[in-house]
This record gives sequence, C-alpha cells and structure tokens, in this order.
Amino acid sequence: MNIKKFSLTMLAVGISLSPFASEAKGHPNLILTESGVERMRDSLGEVPLFDKSLAAVKQEVDAEIEMGIDTPIPKDFSGGYTHQRHKKNFFIAQKAGVLYQVLEDEKYAKYIRDMLFQYEAMYKDLPLHPQKRSYARGKLFWQCLNDSNWLVYMSQAYDAIYDYLSADERKTLEGNLFRPFADFISLENPQFFNRVHNHSTWGIAAVGMIGLVMNDEDLIQRALYGIEDDGLEVGGKDNDGGTIKVEGQRKGFFANLEEPFSPDGYYTEGPYYQRYAMYPFLIFALAMENSRPDLKVLQHKNGVLLKGVNALLNLSDADGEFFPLNDGQKGMSYHSASLVTAVDLAYFYGEKDPQLLSIVEKQNQVLLQESGLSAAIGVRDGKAKPFAKDSVNLSDGPDGQQGGVGILRYGNEDLTLVFKYAAQGLSHGHYDKLSFSLYEKGDEVLQDYGLARFVNIEQKGGGNYLKENATWAKTTIAHNTLSLNGQKHFDGKYDVASQHHSALFTFDAEKENVKVVSATEENAYPGTLMHRTMAVIKDENFEKPFLLDILRVESDQKNQYDLPFYYMGQIIDKNFSYQSPTTLSAFGEDNGYQHLFVEGKGNANNGNTKFQWLGNGKYYTLTAVTHADDEVYLTRIGANDPDFNLRRDAAITLRRNDTADTVFVSVVEPHGSYSPVSESSVNSRSSIASVNVVLDNDDYTGVSITDVKGNIQLFVIANGNSDKSVEHAVTIAGQDYSWTGPYFYQ
Amino acid sequence: MNIKKFSLTMLAVGISLSPFASEAKGHPNLILTESGVERMRDSLGEVPLFDKSLAAVKQEVDAEIEMGIDTPIPKDFSGGYTHQRHKKNFFIAQKAGVLYQVLEDEKYAKYIRDMLFQYEAMYKDLPLHPQKRSYARGKLFWQCLNDSNWLVYMSQAYDAIYDYLSADERKTLEGNLFRPFADFISLENPQFFNRVHNHSTWGIAAVGMIGLVMNDEDLIQRALYGIEDDGLEVGGKDNDGGTIKVEGQRKGFFANLEEPFSPDGYYTEGPYYQRYAMYPFLIFALAMENSRPDLKVLQHKNGVLLKGVNALLNLSDADGEFFPLNDGQKGMSYHSASLVTAVDLAYFYGEKDPQLLSIVEKQNQVLLQESGLSAAIGVRDGKAKPFAKDSVNLSDGPDGQQGGVGILRYGNEDLTLVFKYAAQGLSHGHYDKLSFSLYEKGDEVLQDYGLARFVNIEQKGGGNYLKENATWAKTTIAHNTLSLNGQKHFDGKYDVASQHHSALFTFDAEKENVKVVSATEENAYPGTLMHRTMAVIKDENFEKPFLLDILRVESDQKNQYDLPFYYMGQIIDKNFSYQSPTTLSAFGEDNGYQHLFVEGKGNANNGNTKFQWLGNGKYYTLTAVTHADDEVYLTRIGANDPDFNLRRDAAITLRRNDTADTVFVSVVEPHGSYSPVSESSVNSRSSIASVNVVLDNDDYTGVSITDVKGNIQLFVIANGNSDKSVEHAVTIAGQDYSWTGPYFYQ
Repeated sequence: MNIKKFSLTMLAVGISLSPFASEAKGHPNLILTESGVERMRDSLGEVPLFDKSLAAVKQEVDAEIEMGIDTPIPKDFSGGYTHQRHKKNFFIAQKAGVLYQVLEDEKYAKYIRDMLFQYEAMYKDLPLHPQKRSYARGKLFWQCLNDSNWLVYMSQAYDAIYDYLSADERKTLEGNLFRPFADFISLENPQFFNRVHNHSTWGIAAVGMIGLVMNDEDLIQRALYGIEDDGLEVGGKDNDGGTIKVEGQRKGFFANLEEPFSPDGYYTEGPYYQRYAMYPFLIFALAMENSRPDLKVLQHKNGVLLKGVNALLNLSDADGEFFPLNDGQKGMSYHSASLVTAVDLAYFYGEKDPQLLSIVEKQNQVLLQESGLSAAIGVRDGKAKPFAKDSVNLSDGPDGQQGGVGILRYGNEDLTLVFKYAAQGLSHGHYDKLSFSLYEKGDEVLQDYGLARFVNIEQKGGGNYLKENATWAKTTIAHNTLSLNGQKHFDGKYDVASQHHSALFTFDAEKENVKVVSATEENAYPGTLMHRTMAVIKDENFEKPFLLDILRVESDQKNQYDLPFYYMGQIIDKNFSYQSPTTLSAFGEDNGYQHLFVEGKGNANNGNTKFQWLGNGKYYTLTAVTHADDEVYLTRIGANDPDFNLRRDAAITLRRNDTADTVFVSVVEPHGSYSPVSESSVNSRSSIASVNVVLDNDDYTGVSITDVKGNIQLFVIANGNSDKSVEHAVTIAGQDYSWTGPYFYQ
Repeated sequence: MNIKKFSLTMLAVGISLSPFASEAKGHPNLILTESGVERMRDSLGEVPLFDKSLAAVKQEVDAEIEMGIDTPIPKDFSGGYTHQRHKKNFFIAQKAGVLYQVLEDEKYAKYIRDMLFQYEAMYKDLPLHPQKRSYARGKLFWQCLNDSNWLVYMSQAYDAIYDYLSADERKTLEGNLFRPFADFISLENPQFFNRVHNHSTWGIAAVGMIGLVMNDEDLIQRALYGIEDDGLEVGGKDNDGGTIKVEGQRKGFFANLEEPFSPDGYYTEGPYYQRYAMYPFLIFALAMENSRPDLKVLQHKNGVLLKGVNALLNLSDADGEFFPLNDGQKGMSYHSASLVTAVDLAYFYGEKDPQLLSIVEKQNQVLLQESGLSAAIGVRDGKAKPFAKDSVNLSDGPDGQQGGVGILRYGNEDLTLVFKYAAQGLSHGHYDKLSFSLYEKGDEVLQDYGLARFVNIEQKGGGNYLKENATWAKTTIAHNTLSLNGQKHFDGKYDVASQHHSALFTFDAEKENVKVVSATEENAYPGTLMHRTMAVIKDENFEKPFLLDILRVESDQKNQYDLPFYYMGQIIDKNFSYQSPTTLSAFGEDNGYQHLFVEGKGNANNGNTKFQWLGNGKYYTLTAVTHADDEVYLTRIGANDPDFNLRRDAAITLRRNDTADTVFVSVVEPHGSYSPVSESSVNSRSSIASVNVVLDNDDYTGVSITDVKGNIQLFVIANGNSDKSVEHAVTIAGQDYSWTGPYFYQ
C-alpha cells in the first residue's frame, strides 16, 4: 500500500513525471481517444469485421433513436419494464457516443444530451427504488449494482459528447446528476462500495470513470483506494449471504484487483462472475491507461488483468461456454459482450496473441474502440490461429495459495475434466470441495448444476436468486463430490467455509497418455481427510480417453458416505438389481436431499457396479468399485420444488454406511455413439472387464483396470508424499514396482 | 388387377412389344446400367459432390476389405455383433459393387465373390435364427425383415459382378443361396411376404430384385403379385399387434404401392416408416424401370412413388427431421441414406425440380448411380433453389378418403402445426385421433412423444419395441388430444380402430393471416362426436403467429375429459393455484395414465387459465378458456417405468368432470426470447388479455381473442356445414356478422 500511496502522491503533485501526462488531453479520453477515433474513421470501409460491428451498432442505435427516449419512474425488479428500459438506455447511450465520435453525426450527440438531461431532471428528487430486497438499494434500479452499471456506461457516453456540450450544460449535469450519482453509490452506500466483491468492482469503475471524465480527483482517489472511514461495523450480510465487512478489509480498485484474482488470473468467485466483473475491471483499467498511464494499471500484479482473460477463456468448454463453477448460469460463454471487450483488449494491450483472433472470429464482432479495430484488422489479414486450450492448473487466492481449479484436457477437448479444490469463492461459492464435472467437446457428461436462478426473467422471483439456490444449488449433495452423514461441507456455514480451502497434492499434465490432478480437503468435515485423485487416461485398447477417480477418506469416526454422479442422458444399462418405487419420495429432509426424488434403490455388487447412459448421441459407462453392502440410489431433482424452479436432472449415488476410513474408486468411460439418423449403435459396450483396488494403505492406493481383452493397467498414488523427486517402491501381487514422483502408471 | 395381369401376360409372351425390351441387356441392369456406369466413369473428377460421395464410399469399403470378411453364425438381436456384422456386410457389398463398376478395380469384385461364397457355404445348412421373438424368424437375422434387407442389397452386389463371375459360379450361388433365400422369405414365410405392410415391401423388393438379376420370371411375378395361395388363415398378429391376414387381402408390389399410399403420396404408417419403406419401394421400382420399363412402375398410380418423396419432405420440420407421427423415432431426418436415394431418384426420374437440389446440398452426399450424378451436376452448376415447405393437406387411404394429416405453416417454418386426423396407420398406428404437435422452426413447442424404443441398441430390449410402446407411446393420454374417462380411443382395440378414420371438415391455407384445418371424429368414443378446429393466426398486434385450438364435443353421456399439452421446456409462470405433492403418485392405473406422475394439481380459473414456459430460448403461453370446476394437472412421464425406458417429459392437462357437451378453447402463443449469453429477456409476457367463447351452439362456435391493447379478433367456425360456398350470418353481442364458407375471422 505504501508504494501505491506514494505513487498517487507523485501523480497529484508531479504529474509531469509521466511521459504521457504532460500532453494536454482533450475529450474523448476515457475509452476512446482522439487518436484512436482518428484511426477508426480512417479505416472505415476497409476492415470488414469492424465495419460489420459498426453497422450492427448503428442499426440498433438508430432504431432506438427512432423510438424516442423514455426514462420511466423506477418501479420494477430485473426483467420488468422500467428496469429493462433504463438498462437499455445506458447501453444505447454508450453506443451512440461511439457513433458520434466515429461518424461525426450530431444526432447521436443530441440523443445522449437529451437523455442525460431527462435523467438530470429526474435524479435530483429521485427517492430510493421502491423494491426493498437489496442490502444496497439503488435509485434507478433496485440495487446499487445496476445503478453502477448505468454510470459505467453513461460516463463513456458523457465523455464522447463532452466537447459537444457547453460548459454550462456540463456544469449542470455534473452538479445535479453525475457527482450526486457517484456519491450515492459510494459514500451513501459504503456497504456496497467499500468491499472486495464483484459488486464493488462495478461501483469503483463507475465512480472512477466519471471522475476521470470530470477530472474529479476526489472521485478518482475514492475509486482507487476506497472510502477511508466507511463507518461500517465488521459483519453484516448481503443478499447472497456474503459478509459485507471483514476484519482488516481492504477496499478500492487495487484491493479488488489484488484479492480476488490469483496470480494465474483465476477470479475466486468463478468464471461466471469473472465474466461479469471483467468488464468494469478492464474498462476502468483502460480508462486509467488512457488518462493515467503512469499508474500502469494494466500491468498491475504482473499483468493479472490480461492474464485473467486468458484464464477465463480456458475456463470454457469446446463451445466456449464457461464451466458453471459456484453460482454460474449455464450457456454463458465467450460470445458475451463483456468477453468481446475482454478479448479485444487482451489482444491489443497484450502481446497481440494470434490465438485470440480465432476467438474474435467466433465472436464475429469487435469492440468499437481501437483495440477492436486492431483485432478486426488482424482477422482481416488472416493472422488468426486456433486457440489451443490445454490442461491448466489455476491457483486460487491473492497469492495463489488457496487451492485452485485443475483442468485436464485430452486431445482437442475430446475429454475435459474440471476439478475444483478452490477457496469458498465469496458469497457465490458452493459447498463443493473436491467436486468435478466432465465434458466431451461441448457436451456435459457429468454436470455441475450451476445456479438456481432465471437471470432477468421477472416472473421467476424477479429474475433474482431463487431460494432453491441456497437449498439446492449450493449444497454438497448437488455436486459430484462426497457428502458425509447427509451434511453440507462446513455444515453450510459461510463464515467457516471462507476460512479454509482445499490443498493441491499434485498436478501433472505433461504426459500424453496420463494426466493427473490430486488434492486434499481436511476442513469440510472436521476430523475427516478427503484425498481425491483424478486421472485422464488414454490407453490404446480404449476407443476414447477415460477418467479414473480415486477418493480416499480417513475419518476419526464412522460415517454415511454419499457419492453422486450427475450424469447427463438416459439410462441404457446397469449390472445391479434395484427396486423402483411406484410413488416417489424425497431422498432426505434437508441439505439439498429434500430436493431429490428417489427413482430407484438397489444394492451394489461386491466387486464392480456398472452403470451406462446415452447422452448427446454418445455412450458412457461408470464402473465403480463397490462392496456388497453399499447401496445405489437413482435420484432425480424436483422434490419440494413447488414453483418448478429446478431442472429434472438425474444422478446415480453410491452410499456406503457405517464406515470410517475407506476409498471410492471409479472409472467414467466415454465410448461409442448412436445416431438417430443412421440408427447405428457403435461400440455401445464398456471396454472394462474389472476395476480393482489392489493396494490401499496410508502410503499408497493402487488401482488396476483390466480391459475386456485382458490387458491390465495399474495406477498408484502415493498418499503421503507429493514430492516429484521422491522414489517409491511397492509390491503388488508379488510384483515389484518402483518409480519417482507422486504417482505411478503403466 | 385384370389389366395388370394382362400386361404381365403381354410381357411374358411378347416382350418385343416394348420399345426397350428388344435391346439385349447385359449386366449391370438392376440399379446400375451400362450406360449409367459409363457416364459416371466419364464424369470422375468433374463433379465435386459425386467425387466426394465416391471417395467416402471408397474409404469405407477399403477399410472393410482391409479387415477381412466375417460371416459369423447368427446369434444376436439388433445391436448385437452378429446382427451388426451381417448388416454391415450387405451394405458394404452393395457399395463394393458400385466401386467395381465405376472404378473397374477387380479387388471389389473379388471381395463380393468371396463374401457371397462364404454365405453360400453357410446358408445351405443354416437353421432358423435362434432368437424366437419374431412372428417371421429369419436365418441370418432374427426376423425375415432383416434377411430381406440383406437380399435387397446383395442382389445389387451380385448384379454388379454378374459378368465377373463364371457361369458355374453363378449357378452355384443362385442354386444354393439366392433362390433358396428368396423362397425362404416368401414361400416359407407368407405371413411376412404376403401382406400390405412395410415388412412385405422389403420382402417383395428382395425377391423381385434377385429375380431380375437372375432373370427368374417366377420370382418376378411373385414379387409383383404375391403368392396366389398362401394358406394363411384370416387373423393372426405380428409382433407389433398388426393383423397378418385380413379378409380379401391383396398382396405383392402393386398392392403395397396402391393401398398404403394415398393419392397425395402419404404413407399410412407415417413418415418414419415411409422413410424406411421408401428405399425398397424406390429401388425396386428403379430396377423395374431399368429392366421392365413397359410396366411403368414409377408412373404407377399417377406417379405416387415420386409424389411420396415430396410428401415425405413436407413431413419434416425446419431441420429436416420427420414429424414422429405414430411409431417414429425422433431425430430421423432427410439426412438418412434412404432419403439420399429418394431425393436423387425423385430429381432424376421426376421433373428435375431444382428445389430438390437444395435438399441434396444439405444431405451433402449423393447416390452412386446416375440419378446421384445428375443431382451432383445440378448442384455443381448452381441450379439449386430453396425447398419451400408450405402448408399442405395430405390425404390418407388408398383413395385419399380416410382422413389425413394437415400441416399449417406460417412464414419460413416460423410456426408449423401438424394436425393428425388420419386412419389408424396399420400396426404402428397410435390412438391419437385429432392430435397435434407444434414446431417453431426445428424446435418442438408441443411434442408428439414418438415411439418407445431404442432402435438397434441391444441393451434396451434387444433394440426392439419396448413394452412401454404399447403401455405408453400408443395411448391416447400420451398425445395432445382428448381422452374420455381415462380410456384410449377405440378402447385401444386395433381391429376396431382399423375400421375407422377421422373426417376432414375443412382445410384452408390460402390466406396469409389465417390458416385453418378442421376435422371430426365420431368413432373413437362411440356416442361422442369430437370436432377440432385449429387455426394458425398472424395478427399485427402479436409478435409471432399463434395457434387457436377449438375442440368441441357432443356426447350422449356425461364424461371426464382430459386434454393434455406436452409442452417442451421449463415452467415460467401460471395464473392458477395448485398444490405440489411432496410424494409423487401415478395419474391413474392404466391406459398410459400409470406412466404419469402428478407433480401438481390445481383448480382452473373461471375464465382463462394461463400457463407459460420457456423452451429452446423462446417463451410460450397457453391461454385456455376454463370453468371454475375444471382441474389442472401438472404431470411428468416416468411412473411405473422401472427400466427407465421413457423420457421424463412434462405436460399440463386440463380436466373437466361430469360433462356431456362441451367445448375446449385455447391459444398457444409463442413470444419473445431469452439468451443465456446476453441474459436479455425479450417480450416475456403474453399479449393476450383474454380469450372468450362468445357463441357456442350446434351451428356455430365463436371465439374472441382480446389482446393487451384492447384489440379484439373474432373467429367463428360453422359446426354443421363445411361447404365453401354457403353463406352464414350470426349475431354476437348485438353485432351482426356474415360470411361465406366454413369459418369467419377478423
């Protein structure tokens, strides 16, 4: 902090120290710059993707101008008319600003001015928004978050027409609208502004950006370093259960940049919120780059912002859809507008990575800023190269020391494992330590449920989080991980969960035929250590790569263990007997179990329990090592869901009762295909004859996989020592094996 | 029959009467011809789509030749190894025959010869297939149907290498393999061969085609006219419950051509089986065209075979997937191989319709025959025009007098109604009189469940029909039509159902803003007349076209009425109160009700009951006219389904108790959209303020639709008179209306 305070002082007293600061800067100078606008104008008609993007924006804005301006009295939740209208207003105004600059057509400037003056006339006397659900109510919207969105965009619109307005007009707008607006979302709502949270990021960007346009140093400093004395008491919760003020809380832009981002660019709330926060982070950073380049915001923390873009792209499936870790809406992808901004900026301000251009091609639009122009020129000139997503281990925590997310990929995303051993992830975190999801190309094989919310669909709880998000989506049993005694991890206590994180045991994706990630968790259930090792293996006797899952548990007491697999598809075959009830009842009373119907209950086999399904035209077989007294439950989501807020998705759950130390071993094996057009069923049978635990003690767990031709593969994990240089030796069935490093495979 | 017998006699005694018959024909002369092969050879390298298709076939065949020939002892059901292997053998042999002819590479001829002699060695002593499920067991396969498939393809392979073989070789193959094979599937299995049924079509084509190659007049006559004295008794059922022999049954190719096809080219079993039967129909017809052009098979019944191709293409959604009427597998589409054959032949032997070329483009492959060459040349030369699917009314029955299927389309398949008022459709028919399904582009809005079968997936009941096909898929409650007193139409009695059909009342798709289909059914429930009128309406005050559904019932007794809507998607909103049980029970005991769980039960509103869902990113609202004592059930398929054979799909069902005459009126209204990428929810509310029945008597039923802006539309159907020239006049709320024809709309 000292260094930063110092540099701010330098900025305040000696701005001429910066090589750029001595230039007298006119407007626009926030996101657009005079020189950048000049380049865009000069390139018109010469860069197809840029021209196309501009034409699309022009068509949209012209249609809105045609319809006239409406700034209704605020009334609705997300999805309702007044919410949608004000939201559209700021989007369109920002775009109109760009059009004014690039096309020099005054109608766009006039449109923005008129709209701003309507807001100015309204804002002076505007009370708090009538909807009272938020911990930080806004004025135009039901929460300050959306008011901040408004200001982030409107400050760009204002910057674009700054020179078009008279000094008097600017004075009126700044005095009656922008400055009070900025103060409202910051000084009057420190519980919103003064946090480390995606909400605050928007608030900070809003205050900072309008400060930059107005050249209001007070606002700029507030944005960068927060409110010194916010008067908040430690504790207090927001609407999502997140703690508002924690002991020793940092604040402001730099704190929000440093704390939630790991050095690898992973954002602790998960990709869905990273995508959401990325826009204000980047757009404010860009504004700082343009106005205060000496602060080197884009280079801060070793360039973490641009690294974050790369991390985010790696947190997507083959279709570009983000893994729905924590609260995440399925289907959100790198096609979203905030990723268009992010990718263009990462290209232009980063190292002009030609792989990013292939994402730009898929997005099929660019930002109307010189970064977008540059990306479009790159595409036009054929510079794009395929974006190669490889296996990657993304650490979590400000220093990368709070667990992480390990992604193992085989081939060209033919199989992708997403293994989560991260920190809690703030208020949007789920109780899902050591959980995983599995993808074949862009299709979910074993799903992460994501959030329980219909974002912006007013009919569904105002478009906000539904109560099932807490009672189902966040629970442990809702995830592909181990539940003990029907309880959630950390007993579902956010404050406790926030103090802990899982720990990486090993990550190794160097080899082609076996890639391993392994982590431990010892706090989710006090007295119990869980150690999960997942390996993506490609063997020549198997058509496709498969997943080996070894989950070892040491506990100081006997427990009931539930291990679900949320398979996506329809049941094709199974090798165990079960009863299918004629009336369906819930799996349990609480902790998420109350939302599951039991469609089948059976006994596992002594040896291997096999279960096969067909999803998206492909076959998958689960082969689990089970005991005769293990139980198998076939469940479906939907119990105690009177508003039909949940999807009716299925799972198979292995239950082991009355056991302390134990190990769960299973293989998830993709194979074959089915086409309803050719009606041909190809390779519809598992290639596995048996899976066996051949060794299990404190030091080693060994698993053999025998295929139907009789070939045997052996995998051993060294439970106690992850050092990659340590030598190990074991004897299994009279045969000696020795190797170096935490695991053995052959 | 007399005329045909006569021409056959002419053919037998005076073949030189035909202008073509005097040419001495060599081989190939079945599907390929010497001149056609010459044209293909000459065009190599010059027609991209043909070259590509040839290269793909060559790659496939070469890989198989590499692997060697395997003709295992028959053992398995569909999906099992021996089944799949023999199936692959005939496919590959047929393709190898084409390659031999076009590429003149002897290895292909040798491959076929070796394979045929392996079969010859095996066939002599081959017993019946060990699987005993079929009413007509085959030898290579579990049913004669698949044996016939084999012969249809193998006769083409044989024709291709006919001249390559020595006379002795031919004699051996014909004497030991082909002739006994043909006799087995015909003379020894008249219950299979001598019917009007898609099974027989395959048997007939098989016998006829090998007859043509062998120039065996006995077999050819048998194929064309059936077995004179089959010794079968009237009655008897096949595996699907179809009657084997009905009184006065006709037989042979011409009977199979005349009876199941309506003059419009609709095949009474439905599009899924039309697709299946189309290949043997067309390929045998083509063989006849090449060998016996004087019989003018392709022109038979006013060119019904080629008309059938057009009908079939019209029975598909915007993605080319066939409507799953009766037993139909979802996803089957015009991309299937049999449709590649059908479309190429229809193009070449029909009027060279350039619209068919756009289908060829989508199929992206052509038949390796001169029709395929011709289509590929058309594509190469840019002749393709979009295939415009319009509204169409396809009659059912040999004379087009047994009901039909009415398809109303608005715009470019923006909304497609499929309304079924057909005959029973033989053994694959469903008990679903006056049912409908609704599509927006290629997405199902209200579904037809289709069949309950995993075709060729051995693990699921040997890949055959599952028992749930009868207990669920065929039932009335499984469809979007009216169930009375929990019973199936015709009490589910196939023999009774087969004697009746619904009757068209009116079909009018001439106008842009209102398209109407209306039909009656008076036999499904004796003593009850159902009259359903469906209109696709586009009004300027609505974003999208909507469906008006008027179902009027006259009954001589009081009944319980259930009217389900199998919506595809997730519930967004509803305006009625209901209870959601914590344990789920079945909707009923039998007739399909036993497969439905009740997830909610409520009371309808006195006035309008509204129900909204989101499917495939689009909103839909059902607005139904209801009474206060109507009940609403929210159901989901899956009860009493221990093997998980059924999809867990949902419905909303309106129930009206203790009522004789009544009318059900509802509007299904597509509107708006939702994107998880932009998270914008557009036009998510119904535009309908109210729907009212403003008139209902024996003569007229009138419905008003009031939109949220207060505009009113009125639709009146004249219940008693469908004459398009009759004048009508009614007074509604003091206002006089008069018009000509069966309905009024303004």
